[in-house]
Amino acid sequence: MVVITLMTDFGHSAPYVGQLKGRLLTLCPSAQVIDLTHDVPPMDVRAAALMMADYQPWFPKGTVHCAVVDPGVGTARRILAADIGGAHYVLPDNGLITELARRGHVQRVIAVNLERFRATASATFHGRDIIAPVAAEIAQGTLLPELGPTIRDWVQLPGLIAHAEADGWHGHVWLADRFGNLLTTIRREQLAGESVQVHVAGRTISGLQTTYGDRPPGELIALFGSSNYLEVAVVQGSAADVLGVGPGTPVTAFALSAP
Amino acid sequence: MVVITLMTDFGHSAPYVGQLKGRLLTLCPSAQVIDLTHDVPPMDVRAAALMMADYQPWFPKGTVHCAVVDPGVGTARRILAADIGGAHYVLPDNGLITELARRGHVQRVIAVNLERFRATASATFHGRDIIAPVAAEIAQGTLLPELGPTIRDWVQLPGLIAHAEADGWHGHVWLADRFGNLLTTIRREQLAGESVQVHVAGRTISGLQTTYGDRPPGELIALFGSSNYLEVAVVQGSAADVLGVGPGTPVTAFALSAP
Amino acid sequence: MVVITLMTDFGHSAPYVGQLKGRLLTLCPSAQVIDLTHDVPPMDVRAAALMMADYQPWFPKGTVHCAVVDPGVGTARRILAADIGGAHYVLPDNGLITELARRGHVQRVIAVNLERFRATASATFHGRDIIAPVAAEIAQGTLLPELGPTIRDWVQLPGLIAHAEADGWHGHVWLADRFGNLLTTIRREQLAGESVQVHVAGRTISGLQTTYGDRPPGELIALFGSSNYLEVAVVQGSAADVLGVGPGTPVTAFALSAP
Repeated sequence: MVVITLMTDFGHSAPYVGQLKGRLLTLCPSAQVIDLTHDVPPMDVRAAALMMADYQPWFPKGTVHCAVVDPGVGTARRILAADIGGAHYVLPDNGLITELARRGHVQRVIAVNLERFRATASATFHGRDIIAPVAAEIAQGTLLPELGPTIRDWVQLPGLIAHAEADGWHGHVWLADRFGNLLTTIRREQLAGESVQVHVAGRTISGLQTTYGDRPPGELIALFGSSNYLEVAVVQGSAADVLGVGPGTPVTAFALSAP
Repeated sequence: MVVITLMTDFGHSAPYVGQLKGRLLTLCPSAQVIDLTHDVPPMDVRAAALMMADYQPWFPKGTVHCAVVDPGVGTARRILAADIGGAHYVLPDNGLITELARRGHVQRVIAVNLERFRATASATFHGRDIIAPVAAEIAQGTLLPELGPTIRDWVQLPGLIAHAEADGWHGHVWLADRFGNLLTTIRREQLAGESVQVHVAGRTISGLQTTYGDRPPGELIALFGSSNYLEVAVVQGSAADVLGVGPGTPVTAFALSAP
Repeated sequence: MVVITLMTDFGHSAPYVGQLKGRLLTLCPSAQVIDLTHDVPPMDVRAAALMMADYQPWFPKGTVHCAVVDPGVGTARRILAADIGGAHYVLPDNGLITELARRGHVQRVIAVNLERFRATASATFHGRDIIAPVAAEIAQGTLLPELGPTIRDWVQLPGLIAHAEADGWHGHVWLADRFGNLLTTIRREQLAGESVQVHVAGRTISGLQTTYGDRPPGELIALFGSSNYLEVAVVQGSAADVLGVGPGTPVTAFALSAP
């Protein structure tokens, strides 16, 4: 049984998610359809690109992931199918692939030949009408070269992760989770070193903790979260509420000495 | 493996959704249980009736759909099992079936004989205690006539879709999706013609677009959405926010000339 | 095919839920992974403990339930695996097991030997890094004694359900469901008797109804809900809104005479 996952920004108020599942189950009855999330901030391709890469290491080889965050639906933007790190991805060519391609081994990326969909696809829901059928075909053994030409010029989003300047790494908050923890675009591998200092919202945090329980309740801390982002948190509280900030807020960090 | 779907207004804060799934998996271990949505507006049978019909074309033949939006739970209202368009539906007889029966081929509708449930069913959760067991039986091959008498007098809700008057089609917004797109009760098949004009919230929209990207950001547009409702949208924005309206808002539309 | 369920307080904005599913499907490809809820109030172990027990009667024998509401993640708190009432549970030792153990037959509880996870587990996501792998092992036949020593001193939360005083049962609202019904910690088995009176938010409710439709719209009523909690509701309305109260609000009730 093959796993097909869904990550969208559809929310749950409209029939979109259910229709996507129905289409997949019709075309690939042996699939186990798994919800990753449907609560990506609406049209936020940048957050979706980071989220998609965060799922990558944890799914079985051969999983087919459908990512539908697609503000350009119905326009000329391409639809990609990719083989990265042992899994397949079907997604619009709007930068969603950026972080997947940076973190994982890119085996092949193709631009789906859309000709055969023109007669039947709606203009506003390519997730259901193109991405789902392509995912179902891949799940049942269709090889990427059968679906379209191999490409190398997929859209890449700049600035998804932090960049280095003279005074350290410059990034931003990209996600506030449900606990109010602030996930930043500074990655663990960027911040090797000791005596780390983090600057966010006018506050300075010195040193990194290992987990939330290492410090007393209410303290503002920094740590590497479970997906290797530098994270700003308040012990048993909400950093988002305490600092009054959310996605987009600049964060800088540096390590005083190499380890 | 048979697909059993769930559409409810339960939300996710209480144990109701999980209990429904557990009951289904206990009684029909071979089912793949699929969430359509649990976020139908509370007790909004009219929205649920449209949503349920929107899922219909996309699921495999033989799917069993459970629809639990049931303000009359525990009263004398009947529970129906229906064979429409190649799929089965188990749902309260409160009008939920209206649009399914209008759009699809009705093979048979029965009123479930509830006698055998009286001793064990709770008074407030017939989804778990009646609808789920009936769905599990159907999923495993029980025929509708074994479950109760065939009926033709199911409850039908008036005004679910737009009606014609001298000046055009009169409908209303029935759903604002997560992007702020306003789905109206005017259907694509009602509005064949050219030079369409749409009136909503004191604004007039002339012409129909094909997709959101056809016009510049910020423009108020009308188009047929992916489930064939006339939809009012703002390009890269939220029509719900820009117009300050939501479900229930009147919408009229007419086509100046037949195509 | 074994059922593995997930109950968490993760919400859906972050990659946590998807990662948990991916890990389970990687380690136990034959599992059907079922969402109970991811919307437990953040870090609310008490609500989670009641919810978990409410799912128990409805799932197939042999189900493996993962419960991840874990404010103490990364600290010295233990992780438990339990065999209660014919199902397995993997969960932090923070009291989550309390109501399960009170309602169900406890066959065995073990403290998971964490030594083998120390090298690889993150400090902040033991759901993904310990609970999921343990659940996958149990789902595939590993016996609890292979995973760690049997214990009897699991953490128990006091006051999860109502206690008796001279003037009746004293409890509180523990959950407002999506309809505004208030679920209290007073249980059906505690309140056997006639002429029940319920006191909440300065109001007195006399008598119990069987279902919502028994009284006219707008009336404040009390009844036993589908999971056997005493429930305060407003017919076709929201008791939470009408009374202006929510979780934590004290509720007392007594029966004037034994039945």
